[in-house]
Amino acid sequence: MLENSDCFVYLKSTLMTLSKKTFRRLREIVGKKNCLRDKEDLACYAYDATGLTYMPDAVLFPENTAEVSSILTLANRDGFFVIPRGAGSGMTGGSLAVKQGVIVVMTRFNRIIQIDKDNLVAHVEPGVVTAILHNAVEKKGLFYPPDPASSEFCTLGGNMAECSGGPRAVKYGVTRDYVLGLEVVLPTGEIINTGVQTSKGVVGYDLTRLIVGSEGTLGIITRMVLRLLPLPESVRIMKAAFSEMETAAATVSAIMNHGIIPRSIEYMDNASIRCAEGYLKTGLPVKAAALLIIEADGKQEDADRSIKELGAICRSMGAVDIQIAKNNEESENIRKARKALSPALFEYGPDKINEDIVVPKSRIPDMVKKIKEIKIETGLIIVSFGHAGDGNIHVNVMLDKKNIEDVRKAEYAIDTLFDYTLELGGTISGEHGIGITKSNYIKKEIGLVEIALMKKIKDTFDPEGILNPGKIFYENSI
Amino acid sequence: MLENSDCFVYLKSTLMTLSKKTFRRLREIVGKKNCLRDKEDLACYAYDATGLTYMPDAVLFPENTAEVSSILTLANRDGFFVIPRGAGSGMTGGSLAVKQGVIVVMTRFNRIIQIDKDNLVAHVEPGVVTAILHNAVEKKGLFYPPDPASSEFCTLGGNMAECSGGPRAVKYGVTRDYVLGLEVVLPTGEIINTGVQTSKGVVGYDLTRLIVGSEGTLGIITRMVLRLLPLPESVRIMKAAFSEMETAAATVSAIMNHGIIPRSIEYMDNASIRCAEGYLKTGLPVKAAALLIIEADGKQEDADRSIKELGAICRSMGAVDIQIAKNNEESENIRKARKALSPALFEYGPDKINEDIVVPKSRIPDMVKKIKEIKIETGLIIVSFGHAGDGNIHVNVMLDKKNIEDVRKAEYAIDTLFDYTLELGGTISGEHGIGITKSNYIKKEIGLVEIALMKKIKDTFDPEGILNPGKIFYENSI
Repeated sequence: MLENSDCFVYLKSTLMTLSKKTFRRLREIVGKKNCLRDKEDLACYAYDATGLTYMPDAVLFPENTAEVSSILTLANRDGFFVIPRGAGSGMTGGSLAVKQGVIVVMTRFNRIIQIDKDNLVAHVEPGVVTAILHNAVEKKGLFYPPDPASSEFCTLGGNMAECSGGPRAVKYGVTRDYVLGLEVVLPTGEIINTGVQTSKGVVGYDLTRLIVGSEGTLGIITRMVLRLLPLPESVRIMKAAFSEMETAAATVSAIMNHGIIPRSIEYMDNASIRCAEGYLKTGLPVKAAALLIIEADGKQEDADRSIKELGAICRSMGAVDIQIAKNNEESENIRKARKALSPALFEYGPDKINEDIVVPKSRIPDMVKKIKEIKIETGLIIVSFGHAGDGNIHVNVMLDKKNIEDVRKAEYAIDTLFDYTLELGGTISGEHGIGITKSNYIKKEIGLVEIALMKKIKDTFDPEGILNPGKIFYENSI
Repeated sequence: MLENSDCFVYLKSTLMTLSKKTFRRLREIVGKKNCLRDKEDLACYAYDATGLTYMPDAVLFPENTAEVSSILTLANRDGFFVIPRGAGSGMTGGSLAVKQGVIVVMTRFNRIIQIDKDNLVAHVEPGVVTAILHNAVEKKGLFYPPDPASSEFCTLGGNMAECSGGPRAVKYGVTRDYVLGLEVVLPTGEIINTGVQTSKGVVGYDLTRLIVGSEGTLGIITRMVLRLLPLPESVRIMKAAFSEMETAAATVSAIMNHGIIPRSIEYMDNASIRCAEGYLKTGLPVKAAALLIIEADGKQEDADRSIKELGAICRSMGAVDIQIAKNNEESENIRKARKALSPALFEYGPDKINEDIVVPKSRIPDMVKKIKEIKIETGLIIVSFGHAGDGNIHVNVMLDKKNIEDVRKAEYAIDTLFDYTLELGGTISGEHGIGITKSNYIKKEIGLVEIALMKKIKDTFDPEGILNPGKIFYENSI
């Protein structure tokens, strides 16, 4: 568990600050107006979606690859830390300056360079907001499937860093499946190109996918080649309520075994349903134990037939209330329920800890039972929802972080949750990464030999240890 | 260009042989009957699909992870090379003992440990033949899409090493997209587990995909967790002949833009068509400039509708002869044409060099034109066919390797082919990897900084350099 107060203790123990000379040199690299050092300005780049704050020494806004390279080269020479940042929407502190240093904000890298319809490829810069790419390619009849919940404000660079997923992953896979090649500035300042511009390519080691998901610790991405698909002609949506969570979970398995891969299967538990209904008042079934929201896509006829079949499966499995949206308005109403959840949750407490565990799909009922037990044992409100088709459950532990008792209980809840996740053959993070908030838990999942190897890879890329320090492997960083 | 004679020159310059003591220790590890040292036995493991031969010092058949670990630990201590091998069907020499050493044959790791239908996952050992896994999962209504041409005899371990593709990649992706986690023995003898058993997972660096495609240079895979899909209910196939290659290529683009992603789009040039017809006599259109063989799959109705739409697209683009298979027999006849190609090619010459370049789909016509020019310029027979939906063209240069003039022309042809591939934004290998046959060309595609980084990663994994030496990056190994 991280508390804001921890960071101040930590900062005291580090001595690294920027000399005037280094700062002048940084200002020369990016230009005066792209270099912030006033406390009020720095504060705007000291936080992320974790709610934690760590003040950096400076914030830079480079505009091209050469500038990023110069910053990193200087960091090696003068010995300061560099922390890459997109929109700061990360859930595990990946873009926080936990050891001070210079934040490199990549939002000026915001060009969609080319959308190549003939080859189903986009050349894009990492500061492009995910939803802006979605809209741009969809206008051309193309489709970029990865769709993290924050897509309206997160950037593609951050998506690469964390290997973002989202609801469509059940059918379309995650970010790594849509990256063909990257331009990356290594921590040494060297510029590399990885991967290919084609759908196949096996020349040399797969540096592309080593960098994807490395949480900004192995390099700063400055350009990317993304794979696109043809835009599905039609998307249909339905919801189905269940009086028992176990039935809902069994329905997910039945759907997957039926041979249809839905575009998404989202599930909400009773606390989620009540929460969304309190916020939206659209008549959600507040007594249901679980709600499944399912989408089907494809050619018009396929999507129409699939959604009917999905409805029939839900009915045959014992769903108590099924609605297949007949028009756009009904569809949007169903979508809203799921989307409203994250902000609505704060009704249950001033703070939340959002974990993104994954269990084998067939073990979802076991996990749901365990979460119930943890709720009873701790007395905390725990709300869970997520991407049922992937077994990816977002478990939200609601608490008041000022209340030490709450914090202790939440720590216990998460510890228990992670242990059981791993016992079921799952993973402690499906989408958010480790960053700093989970780094104390990584050894539960990954062995010492594996961690040692990963650290050696980090050292190979970053011999001076200047890029995004204190993340993933470093327990004592928090 | 590699000539067999080269290897002898090379071997003379290496001094590494196994001491009697080391050999005795190896025999203790795997048992006497799983340890070969007679010349006649060694010869059976000295070749691969390149036709090149390099005699190893010994051949071992370990049966479990602990034995593999002991072999590698001993290799570090006593200083001998270890070369992992599956079925020896690789196209670029990845399993050849180019610096002598001990071949570790993984065929006794042949268990399908579990096929988990509920979670769409298989736990498998690397010595399982790909087609055996296909059959086993299909019996349970499941689907493992990667399907290299050699699937009847190649092993899954080899598929991982090379990141195999095959015709279905256009819709379903390649091997890396179906590997969730691995058990790997590192070159140091340490055993690691990478990845997850679930469809999502982002904890730590992506060691799984770093090892996939690393051509047996970073570790020996001893177990794998593979992702499965529901088996498509129906597969339909059609063929369409074109009087101009350009029209066939434009048809591929038209299909992709139409919004249907076919299960496969294979193309054959005129020389391929004539060759297959000479072998099969099934009435292929020997005067056509190109043949497209297209599959559609999905629910029965989807597949039926898709294949009709695909037929209509081909017609509207100017195909001269279209046949949609109406029954299994017709389907098999069409499939045979494509499958017969590889063996049939030897009608054109005693030797072939098979390159697997990839170009952006829209540049296929340019590449076809270039291949024509190279044919005219060199006078060699060059046959091309391949996975048009990926832009992945198998270019087969036919020659007599005993004829020095042929060899020189082939060298020139391949050099020109690779240069133009890269000029078009492509890659010199989509499926086969680099191994030793392409290692002299890798610098055409990958920069020196990138190669240096890959070599550093290799050193990190394999500080003593004992695993599969002389591959990928080492020009002077041939």
